[in-house]
Amino acid sequence: SIGNFNGSLSRSINVESLRPSDTFPRRHNSATPDEQSKMAEFCGFQSLDSLIDATVPKSIRLDAMKFNKFDQGLTESQMIEHMKMLAGKNRVFKSFIGMGYYNTAVPPVILRNIMENPGWYTQYTPYQAEISQGRLESLLNYQTVITDLTGLPMSNASLLDEGTAAAEAMAMCNNILKGKKKTFIIASNCHPQTIDVCKTRADGFDLKVVVADLKDFDYSSGDVCGVLVQYPGTEGEVLDYGEFVKNAHAKGVKVVMASDLLALTLLKPPGEFGADIVVGSAQRFGVPMGYGGPHAAFLATSQDYKRMMPGRIIGVSVDSSGKPALRMAMQTREQHIRRDKATSNICTAQALLANMAAMYAVYHGPEGLKVIAQRVHGLAGVLAAGLKKLGTVEVQELPFFDTVKIKCADSKAIAEAAYKSEMNLRIVDKNTVTASFDETTTLEDVDKLFKVFAGGKSVPFTAASLAPEVPDVIPSGLVRETPYLTHPIFNSFHTEHELLRYIHKLQSKDLSLCHSMIPLGSCTMKLNATTEMMPVTWPSFTDMHPFAPVEQAAGYQEMFDNLGDLLCSITGFDSFSLQPNAGAAGEYAGLMVIRAYHLARGDHHRNVCIIPVSAHGTNPASAAMCGMKIVTIGTDAKGNINIEELKKAAEANKQNLSALMVTYPSTHGVYEEGIDEICKIIHDNGGQVYMDGANMNAQVGLTSPGWIGADVCHLNLHKTFCIPHGGGGPGMGPIGVKKHLAPYLPSHPVISTGGIPAPNEAQPLGTISAAPWGSALILPISYTYIAMMGSGGLTDASKIAILNANYMAKRLENHFPVLFRGVNGTVAHEFIVDLRGFKNTAGIEPEDVAKRLMDYGFHGPTMSWPVPGTLMIEPTESESKAEMDRFCDALISIREEIAQIEKGKVDANNNVLKGAPHPPSLLMADKWTKPYSREYAAFPASWLRSTKFWPTTGRVDNVYGDRNLVCTLLPTNGVEEQEAAASA
Amino acid sequence: SIGNFNGSLSRSINVESLRPSDTFPRRHNSATPDEQSKMAEFCGFQSLDSLIDATVPKSIRLDAMKFNKFDQGLTESQMIEHMKMLAGKNRVFKSFIGMGYYNTAVPPVILRNIMENPGWYTQYTPYQAEISQGRLESLLNYQTVITDLTGLPMSNASLLDEGTAAAEAMAMCNNILKGKKKTFIIASNCHPQTIDVCKTRADGFDLKVVVADLKDFDYSSGDVCGVLVQYPGTEGEVLDYGEFVKNAHAKGVKVVMASDLLALTLLKPPGEFGADIVVGSAQRFGVPMGYGGPHAAFLATSQDYKRMMPGRIIGVSVDSSGKPALRMAMQTREQHIRRDKATSNICTAQALLANMAAMYAVYHGPEGLKVIAQRVHGLAGVLAAGLKKLGTVEVQELPFFDTVKIKCADSKAIAEAAYKSEMNLRIVDKNTVTASFDETTTLEDVDKLFKVFAGGKSVPFTAASLAPEVPDVIPSGLVRETPYLTHPIFNSFHTEHELLRYIHKLQSKDLSLCHSMIPLGSCTMKLNATTEMMPVTWPSFTDMHPFAPVEQAAGYQEMFDNLGDLLCSITGFDSFSLQPNAGAAGEYAGLMVIRAYHLARGDHHRNVCIIPVSAHGTNPASAAMCGMKIVTIGTDAKGNINIEELKKAAEANKQNLSALMVTYPSTHGVYEEGIDEICKIIHDNGGQVYMDGANMNAQVGLTSPGWIGADVCHLNLHKTFCIPHGGGGPGMGPIGVKKHLAPYLPSHPVISTGGIPAPNEAQPLGTISAAPWGSALILPISYTYIAMMGSGGLTDASKIAILNANYMAKRLENHFPVLFRGVNGTVAHEFIVDLRGFKNTAGIEPEDVAKRLMDYGFHGPTMSWPVPGTLMIEPTESESKAEMDRFCDALISIREEIAQIEKGKVDANNNVLKGAPHPPSLLMADKWTKPYSREYAAFPASWLRSTKFWPTTGRVDNVYGDRNLVCTLLPTNGVEEQEAAASA
Ligand SMILES: Cc1ncc(COP(=O)(O)O)c(C=O)c1O
Ligand SMILES: Cc1ncc(COP(=O)(O)O)c(C=O)c1O
Ligand SMILES: O=C([O-])O
Repeated sequence: SIGNFNGSLSRSINVESLRPSDTFPRRHNSATPDEQSKMAEFCGFQSLDSLIDATVPKSIRLDAMKFNKFDQGLTESQMIEHMKMLAGKNRVFKSFIGMGYYNTAVPPVILRNIMENPGWYTQYTPYQAEISQGRLESLLNYQTVITDLTGLPMSNASLLDEGTAAAEAMAMCNNILKGKKKTFIIASNCHPQTIDVCKTRADGFDLKVVVADLKDFDYSSGDVCGVLVQYPGTEGEVLDYGEFVKNAHAKGVKVVMASDLLALTLLKPPGEFGADIVVGSAQRFGVPMGYGGPHAAFLATSQDYKRMMPGRIIGVSVDSSGKPALRMAMQTREQHIRRDKATSNICTAQALLANMAAMYAVYHGPEGLKVIAQRVHGLAGVLAAGLKKLGTVEVQELPFFDTVKIKCADSKAIAEAAYKSEMNLRIVDKNTVTASFDETTTLEDVDKLFKVFAGGKSVPFTAASLAPEVPDVIPSGLVRETPYLTHPIFNSFHTEHELLRYIHKLQSKDLSLCHSMIPLGSCTMKLNATTEMMPVTWPSFTDMHPFAPVEQAAGYQEMFDNLGDLLCSITGFDSFSLQPNAGAAGEYAGLMVIRAYHLARGDHHRNVCIIPVSAHGTNPASAAMCGMKIVTIGTDAKGNINIEELKKAAEANKQNLSALMVTYPSTHGVYEEGIDEICKIIHDNGGQVYMDGANMNAQVGLTSPGWIGADVCHLNLHKTFCIPHGGGGPGMGPIGVKKHLAPYLPSHPVISTGGIPAPNEAQPLGTISAAPWGSALILPISYTYIAMMGSGGLTDASKIAILNANYMAKRLENHFPVLFRGVNGTVAHEFIVDLRGFKNTAGIEPEDVAKRLMDYGFHGPTMSWPVPGTLMIEPTESESKAEMDRFCDALISIREEIAQIEKGKVDANNNVLKGAPHPPSLLMADKWTKPYSREYAAFPASWLRSTKFWPTTGRVDNVYGDRNLVCTLLPTNGVEEQEAAASA
Repeated sequence: SIGNFNGSLSRSINVESLRPSDTFPRRHNSATPDEQSKMAEFCGFQSLDSLIDATVPKSIRLDAMKFNKFDQGLTESQMIEHMKMLAGKNRVFKSFIGMGYYNTAVPPVILRNIMENPGWYTQYTPYQAEISQGRLESLLNYQTVITDLTGLPMSNASLLDEGTAAAEAMAMCNNILKGKKKTFIIASNCHPQTIDVCKTRADGFDLKVVVADLKDFDYSSGDVCGVLVQYPGTEGEVLDYGEFVKNAHAKGVKVVMASDLLALTLLKPPGEFGADIVVGSAQRFGVPMGYGGPHAAFLATSQDYKRMMPGRIIGVSVDSSGKPALRMAMQTREQHIRRDKATSNICTAQALLANMAAMYAVYHGPEGLKVIAQRVHGLAGVLAAGLKKLGTVEVQELPFFDTVKIKCADSKAIAEAAYKSEMNLRIVDKNTVTASFDETTTLEDVDKLFKVFAGGKSVPFTAASLAPEVPDVIPSGLVRETPYLTHPIFNSFHTEHELLRYIHKLQSKDLSLCHSMIPLGSCTMKLNATTEMMPVTWPSFTDMHPFAPVEQAAGYQEMFDNLGDLLCSITGFDSFSLQPNAGAAGEYAGLMVIRAYHLARGDHHRNVCIIPVSAHGTNPASAAMCGMKIVTIGTDAKGNINIEELKKAAEANKQNLSALMVTYPSTHGVYEEGIDEICKIIHDNGGQVYMDGANMNAQVGLTSPGWIGADVCHLNLHKTFCIPHGGGGPGMGPIGVKKHLAPYLPSHPVISTGGIPAPNEAQPLGTISAAPWGSALILPISYTYIAMMGSGGLTDASKIAILNANYMAKRLENHFPVLFRGVNGTVAHEFIVDLRGFKNTAGIEPEDVAKRLMDYGFHGPTMSWPVPGTLMIEPTESESKAEMDRFCDALISIREEIAQIEKGKVDANNNVLKGAPHPPSLLMADKWTKPYSREYAAFPASWLRSTKFWPTTGRVDNVYGDRNLVCTLLPTNGVEEQEAAASA
């Protein structure tokens, strides 16, 4: 009675169906094969492939891309296994190396709720202030931490690393003195990588860098614009720079001080010595070392130089209701950078890490930070006292904060002994080591170090037993007296619940990829998949010091080698440098490679760089920083480079031609047909082709920079290769080069490096970033993306990115003019809609449309770049048809709203676009004075009824903010008044 | 010129200041020592200690608590190191054990955004529907998954595990037949743990369980209420139950089927056989095995029995604007459970895990699930085919889905060989093993298994080579034909971006501890710290099968031993069972221990359980489930147990007294002075004292159940010991006992277990949960909490919890009557404010106040329990003074709003309380018809201007929903209509 079975059917199982099913490309690429066909048909093509064939010029089309490894793509769980294998090859020793990188206890609440939280890491740079008030507040906190601790009133919202921050400060000194004094002196007590980055950077500015012992500084030439000193010094010494600064100032020399935030909780701040600029890293404020980065660097200065400060600055302004609201100050500086007059090209910075550091300060508060600093200082004191007692070595007598300098008979032998106990010391020279302490150092560590210095024998005392007799070595004149972090924000959120809620409160104000598409042309805001993000916070990756012996980092090194190989396959290049830690840093590095190449061939005169007018502002800025002469060429009516003009420019500069910088597909979103011809013209005239790889998302698997004919290219890993934007960084800008350029790729003064794979010979151009492999900790993101997609998945991604852009362009073309198309009427992976006409017909500007889009729950596209008065839309392959349809519906609906103005039905000055965005406070106000209805303002589309992301302020007034520049938290009274005003 | 140093100052470093600084108690406990004094003074005491002395009766006060380990508390990073050490001791072999627990690929986007996301895991059970629409939707998705796959129309929103779900179904059969047929037959093809849990549970219902082979089922007695069969069977066989069900029904016997969701994507659903109830586990839908739990179990049934269904049910209703809105259906059932008539005591369930499983179905969709199932089935087919080919063993001929049953000469030898390859098989008996496959099984695994069965020799074929010739073994009559998961929700979110946004969309509708305090009396919604949560998702903990050989789980076992020891120190007990996986399960287990004790002593007649009227509904329900006779006793005017009445009841039942159930401090929030006397009375009359440990947060370190005189107690680890509530589970309810009861603690049929530490002899009462140590995966949370707090930190937690409650009571007492206080006028860790008066003076009910609190951004306190018409407030030690002040301000402001009604200034039927909550859709509507203003409704407190959590619907109509019970997603048309209606 238990059922009768009808015998078995025979079948044949396809082995493919038995392969692991957790494949990744279908999670990353949105359109299913069926949708691909339908969307291609909608665009007027029979299939996706015929759309692609019509779009990508045949002359540059690749047959197929093939990888040496991972060609098929790993599944998500296979990927995690592979990464675990690599992680297992990293041996994390306890680091006492210091040199700007310290162990830190990342507060778990910050780790989970910021670093591991897509609500924070997928945000874009806060250009759209009304949907970014959370991170703007956090970055303002960061600026306040920096100004309070350094004792200088102005700070930016992060730079790339301490080395480049010092280089930026050097450039400021040059600017302050209007380029008239061309010597910059660096004290030998600075970190070696800081010195090298400055030296490399000085070249392009025609500055002479002199490295000298502090006591040998010589201003007698009258040619010195500035000096850089470090406080505490790289070997630990804490010096009183009072007289030194007075002396420099007396000679008209600007003083830059590299410093350490934790030390500054105990030490007299540089501002009180009179330093003009202070730079450093916020890494040890709760950001893991990560084998070199990403970390937020800082730069603080006085009111006098604030408008020369590089990077983004957050400032306080007011919104349309007169309530306080934050936004990026002086934005226009950045949007167009200064082009040929630029002395900085920084764009993507380190926002996410700045936010982590700021939250660390918020969590610990001034008292908590001081406790940490005193403990570190106390332990260092115990080490020094113990070593003196031991008598086997000699301890430096100068005051120190966290680093003890030790003279010994054989530093290498000491270091070897330390390795045996899984500890890394810094070897300064044959007879000198240093030990830097940090938040994670313990009494037991100190005991272990005693044993190392006692030649492995046990010592007759312990760290604990010594503590009561340890003398303080900081002279009273250097003890900090000025209070810091007195604002309530730093004195309220010290329990985990309070901090958790503060983090979530800020997050709730910010639109991210968790809410809706962020269709920013040129920014490639695609999926940042969880599997890609997971290894980033594994201790075997986070806890590695960048200057640890390379053999301890075998997992990292294997990943670098694999990644270099994959990137070569993708780009058609022969070697890669992973050092540049942003796109603009890559541009600069790439041009410096070209410069070094010409110099090596004796072509000292080759210094002309041709750049199309449509280039991103960082292009001319980078060229200017390399000391190049920029020749601008125009584009034709179709948005393409004017080849005739290019040819003329190249020939006219034949003798001195260094390079062309070209973005491909163009910043106009078009595959220029003449790109191979363009490359040929440059080469024929002795130049090198630099390709800006920002639009690489339209090339991968279909063509490649190397195949097209470029000699160098940077990749924005934070665009094409899935590193999340982090609200304005981190990013990575590795550069790939053809064989002839590989020898010139950057190296590093502490850990030597170069091209991957390595060229036969090396003549490195110098050092680009503070860390040998830039922000190594985020490389697993791009690596896993590529390895999971495989060559096929990546090629599909490019195709679908193009499909999506064409689909949206098609949906919008009857409502807005679409500027620039390829020969067959298609666009590349992004496209431009023209709003210029509406200025006349309705008084509407792109900003009005972007702000109104917020009411529809969307982040506006790239505004007025590369063409003023337009919006550039890039959907990426990760956005679904449903999401794109919603976005198109929103834009079409806004077009209707504009039509109402055009028809005169609606007031041109008082309408739903000019009034946008509409925050709840406005929509729920008792008084409603708008000529349109609340519901029309709030719910212009039906999908918003089920959930809507709300802007938290009315339109922010940029002009007011720039006129009344306030870049730190208001003092408490101010806050209370403003809050009272806000709730009135 | 480099500065002159003023020589060193001498100092003496306190060694304590050199200890690691990332201590935990200050992050968990809110009040600083300074705040403690000020708040105690505000309450009228000189110090916190004097407040505590006045509050906790001297007679039960402990001198001090002391731990054998972790007494000082580890710091956060030390804790992580310790947990890594334990994790390293777990050796995770690939599991082919099956038996209801399978490997699964947790989609990383679900792992990070639900399981590791405090926005989801800190939510409370969705009683307050208007601020819970997100998880209500997700749970409705879960119910739809269950109903679609089982083919039965009604499902609840999760039960504790498959074993207890089967036991609940058994109780339903008993109920359906009104308790008149007392035999329940269980097929021997059910999992052994399912059988044992049912057997144990049957005892209290006076049911006779017969375990029999299917072919031996005998209904001739006429006494059979139901049968339980498994589909597929525990050893893999897939049987056609068509005739079987018909036959049972013909005899008036109800059919329960235990089934497997993944199998049901391919197999004819049980509903189509006519099964009355289907139970099972949703674990393999993306929830890690976690050494046994937590996972969501399910129970589906027909419309006929829906009102007998245990557990929570989510249903569709409408809100005050007539728009569709979700809420828990038939809530009143739960609030008071059925007390002495109860046949189920389930309260905390497995909401978080049900949400994960539902999202897994949403992510994969019907097609994706089928692909997974076919792959698993295909691989199992390949194994069977290969083994047949090999000929060394005999393969069961019955059809199977994922489990292959193999007869062999020596099953232990085979298993040992498999261990060598880090694989676990199930040993069924001396000559039988089974291998169960799952989503993570690979072709390589199958090859490895071939090798094991070939005695280590290599075999002449591979899994891949065999695939094309594998026959299908599922008979056509058992192939599923009915479609499932056809709703758009299961067919839209298949890319990571889409799922990410769906998860975040739902999350954005739900208030959690990320937003504000959730002051639920008796629920102890304290901080769930990140460090506590981190190990929960480490693979060494997640990927362990509960029936893996214990020596592979040495890390888990060490943690259990340590935790048992710590809990003994905390409670004053001698042994613990970690098996019960919720508080109510603990109550039941504890009473069953007492029952077993009496039985063992020959006291078969001792079956009277005295329970105060103020007890939580689970108390009488649990007693009823143990077959006890409940004698209810009253409380006096002060809310204390009426000792005279108790004494009378005890003496009257002297012969038959089994137990007293008592909550301490009382559910009224008071430390009853007579508690030691109460215990004595019970003991004097031959009874045992069962203490409900729900209020343990007011005892830890100050007193203890053991010290007070209790014999058994359960601990809600999801209250006092930091397991987050997960939106309605998971929880854990371990029980502690005095020495004389230790032998009776539950064991397990597969992996034998018992008290920790183990008693000398064991006479286990049976099996309480499906897994030997309950939801082992979440035990690290409580373990790390205790180990980081140390004895001192925990004692401070209790003190501050009491301080906080007294502070709030003091702030509120001039505005609301505070019911019940101790002899010195203080309250315990929670207190009751009385709203009963407002019914007459203003027509206001507790619900109105709770809903209005939402407008202030808060979750209401426990409503109308234990005293109707009141609110019970429990702040916990983790809430800061600032947060409590905001909450008190809100309540005081609401009191003012009530006063306006009382004074006649405001309409009693149409006011801001009756209109609450006010969602944005209402506040922004063009029409505003309320007699109060929009801003008054929306922003009744100034802090709401800076951020506010918005309810997403108007007040939900419970009555309408219960009258029109809809417990699955509406068919698409309905949805569209409702959406159209909603946006109209
Ligand atoms: C075309 C182009 N080039 C260069 C850059 C600079 O890259 P990064 O911001 O990483 O420095 C960008 C950034 O948006 C860009 O769009
Ligand atoms: C006093 C009391 N006892 C028992 C329980 C039941 O615990 P659980 O929900 O974990 O089953 C509760 C739950 O709220 C409770 O408050
Ligand atoms: O910040 C960027 O312009 O990408």
